[in-house]
Amino acid sequence: MMQETINNQFLIKKDITFLNFGSFGAAVKPVFKAYQDYQLELEQDPVHFITQSGMQYLKESRIALANYIGCHDNDVVYVTNPSYAVNIVAKSFPLKQGDEVLTTNLEYGACDKTWKYYCNKVGAKYIQQPITLPVTTKAFFVEEFFKGVSANTKLIFISHITSSTGLRLPVEEIVAKAKSLGIATFIDGAHAPGQVPLNMQELGVDIYTGACHKWMMTAKGSSFLYIKKEIQHLFDPLVVSWGYDAFFPSDSQFLDYHQTQGTRDFTAFLTIPTAINFMQENNWWNVAEECRNFVLQQAPRFLELLQAKSIAPLNHDFLVQLFSIPINCKEPEKLHDYLYSKYQIQIPVMRHGNQVYLRYSVQVFNTIKDFDNLFNALKEILETTNFIEV
Amino acid sequence: MMQETINNQFLIKKDITFLNFGSFGAAVKPVFKAYQDYQLELEQDPVHFITQSGMQYLKESRIALANYIGCHDNDVVYVTNPSYAVNIVAKSFPLKQGDEVLTTNLEYGACDKTWKYYCNKVGAKYIQQPITLPVTTKAFFVEEFFKGVSANTKLIFISHITSSTGLRLPVEEIVAKAKSLGIATFIDGAHAPGQVPLNMQELGVDIYTGACHKWMMTAKGSSFLYIKKEIQHLFDPLVVSWGYDAFFPSDSQFLDYHQTQGTRDFTAFLTIPTAINFMQENNWWNVAEECRNFVLQQAPRFLELLQAKSIAPLNHDFLVQLFSIPINCKEPEKLHDYLYSKYQIQIPVMRHGNQVYLRYSVQVFNTIKDFDNLFNALKEILETTNFIEV
Repeated sequence: MMQETINNQFLIKKDITFLNFGSFGAAVKPVFKAYQDYQLELEQDPVHFITQSGMQYLKESRIALANYIGCHDNDVVYVTNPSYAVNIVAKSFPLKQGDEVLTTNLEYGACDKTWKYYCNKVGAKYIQQPITLPVTTKAFFVEEFFKGVSANTKLIFISHITSSTGLRLPVEEIVAKAKSLGIATFIDGAHAPGQVPLNMQELGVDIYTGACHKWMMTAKGSSFLYIKKEIQHLFDPLVVSWGYDAFFPSDSQFLDYHQTQGTRDFTAFLTIPTAINFMQENNWWNVAEECRNFVLQQAPRFLELLQAKSIAPLNHDFLVQLFSIPINCKEPEKLHDYLYSKYQIQIPVMRHGNQVYLRYSVQVFNTIKDFDNLFNALKEILETTNFIEV
Repeated sequence: MMQETINNQFLIKKDITFLNFGSFGAAVKPVFKAYQDYQLELEQDPVHFITQSGMQYLKESRIALANYIGCHDNDVVYVTNPSYAVNIVAKSFPLKQGDEVLTTNLEYGACDKTWKYYCNKVGAKYIQQPITLPVTTKAFFVEEFFKGVSANTKLIFISHITSSTGLRLPVEEIVAKAKSLGIATFIDGAHAPGQVPLNMQELGVDIYTGACHKWMMTAKGSSFLYIKKEIQHLFDPLVVSWGYDAFFPSDSQFLDYHQTQGTRDFTAFLTIPTAINFMQENNWWNVAEECRNFVLQQAPRFLELLQAKSIAPLNHDFLVQLFSIPINCKEPEKLHDYLYSKYQIQIPVMRHGNQVYLRYSVQVFNTIKDFDNLFNALKEILETTNFIEV
């Protein structure tokens, strides 16, 4: 992590030990500048920008994103965040009474809520297949997960990289197997773009959502929804607007339905090409690899200190730029606030089911000093408080 | 319109004759600065801002808005735009087969689409009561509109100020009469906040949505939805997220449901107090009155030039800061582009049903020169092209 010039491209305050890139990412300076420059351009002639020039930029941005994630630009649409995308899909995915959506018990809570809400409406079931932790091999993961399949399974919904547990799941194998069984797949890639390379066409997934404002470092509220052309017609807009039953339809009903949704500041979506350029200029897959190695390198001393067992083998099968350590902690919100207020360490302490996880992220700017800060703080907390029981 | 200091508070390019404040408004400089300052603060510690300090600012902003529109701050929630709000309401408003939603034939097209979509799902009817143009008196308007009421009418949905036709409708009288008939009311105030004073409690309306990014001059994508406390429980979130069946519910389920919806840049919502201060410091209701007078003053020469009949009496009963002139024009999109590219005049030429309207707006910065530009351009267009038939 010695790329001083890259480190200075972030706006995060230097007095914070920022170990939570995972929750909301952080925009790099050229992206932030592009964002605010577009906003100024918008205000200089709102009508022209919103109806014409901005629409052209939006198309160019979508083309850049489509190249980056390996799909046709008419098959991907910008959405505010993956929650929004999951709501589009869950609202319209054709489910009848008795149908099942298969997922894991490691999914993001807001998505679980969405699926339960829409499954309840029609009497479908949301099956949260339990995954044994620690995970061991991809093959075992796939085997265990597919035990949840029944004759009623119509869709598999699964994270590419889980949130609380920070595990990269074997989505390539899962999609392939689902295909062979004739089950549709929807991958929640909230944490994936920018952490791992994506190619929708090679993956062969039916539906995929990813956040750009996390690991792609774009402006907040920029995410995407990819849907395979053959099934796009199933999905109604979440915000019905001019694009529904359009007076002047474009060549893509998918875009008409989901891109047009009333006046908003869509300039966050326009920052994607700047972010992609930034990553390419800085050999981002090398950077990501260094970060992944750093994640593994730091893990043992924290597992030892917290007397915790890793929830995954310490290799790259399941681990990327996040590492979640299971801890015994009754008041995770208070521990988070204590770490932040007393030590200026920003790190999430998350509930998931009955377990609490301390999750660190590694981004290019994180140094050994950040992790020493965390280590020393946790040591002191173990010695002087009751927040964590070991 | 001689307030030179106020005029310089807008970012709109000086070489444009900007006569379309109505479509998307335009932010004033202090608002735009607050917007971008908040965005920088967000990026300096995204986690702290999105989960803590920003939430506090959001609450303060909601309190300022609630004071401005005369309601309790827990009864109003920020939404991106009125289309979003109409979708929340139309998705959840309890309608059964045969029920009717009464509206006019002057509503915003995107809202019509939304209501038709959701009414179709349950077999309810969306009754677009025809309004005779020109409108004459408020009393006649109310009488004609209420002819659309039947025993099945469950909701009245109506614009406070219409879009294509730019008419302020007598919503006070409509709400009062609906109440006496036991019919719920939902007012689409997209164009109202900042053009006319609002007081939800005095108005006694059940549901109201307004855009802040138009005439309140805030950042794009900032609007609100007010729902009377007694019926808030009817409305599910459009984006189901953490606030639904919340682990840590707040004292307002309404806010939990509609405010929490995944990661987004919510700083546009935070600019409302700055905008309200700006308006108060500049005696905005006096400014608005001057603008309304200017609207009326300009009307006759344009009606004469275009050989058009005003769609409302030239007084303040129905007219505020918009004026729509019915014209015979086969290609409104081309006429708009021609006015913009040849004369740098930004003015909408809108289809509504079988009619086309040329609609001008008056904001504080508009001068007699702007209207001379428009007049001379239209004169030349009438003489040299076939865009408008008179």
